[in-house]
Order: sequence, then structure tokens, then C-alpha cells
Amino acid sequence: MDFFPSALENLIDKFAMLPGIGRKTAQRLAFYMIAIPDEDAISFADTIKAAKRGVKCCTVCLNLTDGDLCSVCKDTRRNTKVVCVVPDPKGVLAIERSHEFDGLYHVLHGVISPIGNIGPDDIKIKELIARVSDGGIDEVIMATNPDTEGETTARYISRLLHPFGVKVTRLAYGIPVGGSLEFVDDATLMRALEGRMEM
Amino acid sequence: MDFFPSALENLIDKFAMLPGIGRKTAQRLAFYMIAIPDEDAISFADTIKAAKRGVKCCTVCLNLTDGDLCSVCKDTRRNTKVVCVVPDPKGVLAIERSHEFDGLYHVLHGVISPIGNIGPDDIKIKELIARVSDGGIDEVIMATNPDTEGETTARYISRLLHPFGVKVTRLAYGIPVGGSLEFVDDATLMRALEGRMEM
Repeated sequence: MDFFPSALENLIDKFAMLPGIGRKTAQRLAFYMIAIPDEDAISFADTIKAAKRGVKCCTVCLNLTDGDLCSVCKDTRRNTKVVCVVPDPKGVLAIERSHEFDGLYHVLHGVISPIGNIGPDDIKIKELIARVSDGGIDEVIMATNPDTEGETTARYISRLLHPFGVKVTRLAYGIPVGGSLEFVDDATLMRALEGRMEM
Repeated sequence: MDFFPSALENLIDKFAMLPGIGRKTAQRLAFYMIAIPDEDAISFADTIKAAKRGVKCCTVCLNLTDGDLCSVCKDTRRNTKVVCVVPDPKGVLAIERSHEFDGLYHVLHGVISPIGNIGPDDIKIKELIARVSDGGIDEVIMATNPDTEGETTARYISRLLHPFGVKVTRLAYGIPVGGSLEFVDDATLMRALEGRMEM
């Protein structure tokens, strides 16, 4: 029902497109956007464009960055012999918050998901294999989410890494099964890092 | 903690500024925005700007519109003798959904709220009084939210309209006390319109 001016209906549609935002919430957000001062709304729009322009993937670990290297890869004090594999940049943030890990990361940007029609080639596995085959890495820690897809992805990568003779570990099951990495509390993550097991 | 690239942190901040959006949700929305194709994100940003540029207030009833008159005021079949006073454009949508009202509207763009520091001059009461004093209006229906602020606003306006000899009614208490107009179901709204009482 196109009751409001089309420019407003379009905005409601755009907000409703966002994940987890229903029609009512989209309406509320669109009305809010109409009500705030022009410069605030324009700055909101420009921030979206700036983020799309300015945010790139780190050339080493594929974490998000505004330069060539992300803040972790740029840090020369990090242990470059250990690489922690996470499903997405939020995973990096979660592990960093535990202050228990001083190695580097590899961001997969997804997990293998037959239901979601995401295969091994759709995520950044090739890039991980290339990093490991370049040498200098002693251990790869799998920190995918503790659910079926994360588990599948970890096992798949672990098999691919076997020929390189690199130690492949995964986070201990201190992390609650079926949960999402990003919501794990720091203490649990710390214990999960300490108790990681060879796989 | 500025862990992500600043362009991304800025976008998270912008989303977190929206009403009802917490930090975690803002992060999720910002990451979504980073992940979708460039043209989709740019179109989102442009839609915000277009809405800010294109959406104005109807010169008669102050409902949102993209021209001079809103879709209701433009409709020549409407009964111009009855004006329904609503707190915001969502109120117009709610009443229209009941298909029980064929008059015009007046959008206050707020309610009197001593706590929110919103006085009678901060909302569009003057404009309503001007419409009524111009003549041609037989009845003003108060459809403010059935809470203290809505009630206060309705009583205040009712007193101001008294000298003009216009009939002032309000929605019957079919609408649940303490609720918000926008979430009332259509049937309840219909009964509330039928049972309106003089005040």
C-alpha cells in the first residue's frame, strides 16, 4: 500500500531490506530519518558511501581495513607463526577482546554451507592455503562458529592443510555448542583458546 | 574501542544513533552494508537523500507528501467538514486503514509533553486553530494516543476550539489505554471511530 509519498515508501523499503528489520521498524527508522535535521540525514547517507569506498580487505588476512594491511597485520609485535581462522571480521574482534591471542588472523568471509549454497570456493580458503604454502606458519587455529557449518568448514580446511605438515588446532569446546562466536563472553573465549586441541 | 577501520566505525556509530538500534545491531547492519554490492549501498544512501529532499508537509493538513497537497487533501471525495487530529503521519495511516473515516486530517507532529519539554507552540496547534477559524469545519475529532500526553493535548486543543462553536469529539475508549495509536488493530479503531464522544 503506497500511502506515503513515494520517496518515503522507497526509504521504508530500503530499511526493511536490512537483516532483522521488519516493516514496522523500517517505518519507524524512515520516519526518524525524515524528522532529523537535513545535515544529519545527509551525513548518514554520506557515511554509508564513505564506508563502501574506504573499507577494503587486508591483503594478508582479509580482515577489514582502510589501508593495505589491517591493524593486526601491521602490528610488528604479533606472532606471525600462528594464524587464527575466523568466519568473519566480527570473529577477529571477538578473539581480540579476549586479549589471549597474539598471532595473526585469516578471515574466511563465510563458511561452507550446503543449505546456503556456499561451497569451499565461495569463501577465502584458497588464500589461506596460499599463505600456509608460503611457509613461516607453524600452527593454524580454527575459530569457526561451534555449529554444524563451522565444524564442517574447520574439518574441510584441516584436511587441506594436512599435507603442509602444519599443526592444525581448534578452539576447545569451552564455547557453547550451537552458539555464535560473536556473542561468546571473553572469559569463555580465553578458556577456549587455552584448551585448544589438535585435530 | 576503534578496532575496525574508521569509515566502518563511523557507520556503526550512525546506525547506533537510530532509535531502538543498539550497538550489536548497529554492527550487524554496518557489516551488512559493507558486504552488499556497491550499487545497493549507494542506492540506499541516495534514497535517504531523496526522501529528505522529496518529502514535504501538506500545506493544508501537514501530513507528509511529495507535492503541495497530500493524497487525502487532494481527494475531492473526502468530507471537508470533519477534521481528524492525529499526533503524526503514522496516525493518518492507522485511521485510513480502518476505512471508516472519510474526512480530512490535521497532523500535529508531536504532543504536548512537559517531561519532553514540548509545549503547545512546539506542535502544529496554531495551524489547526487557523483552519477552524477559516470556517467550513463542523467537527474536529481528536485521535491523539490514549495516554497522558495525548489526553492532555486533546483537552488543551478542545478548550482552544470551544469559542469557534465547532463540535469537538474524541475517539471512544475502544482504543486500549496506555497504548500507541499505530499498533491498534483495524477493528478496534473502527469501533473507536463509531463510538466517539463529544468533549
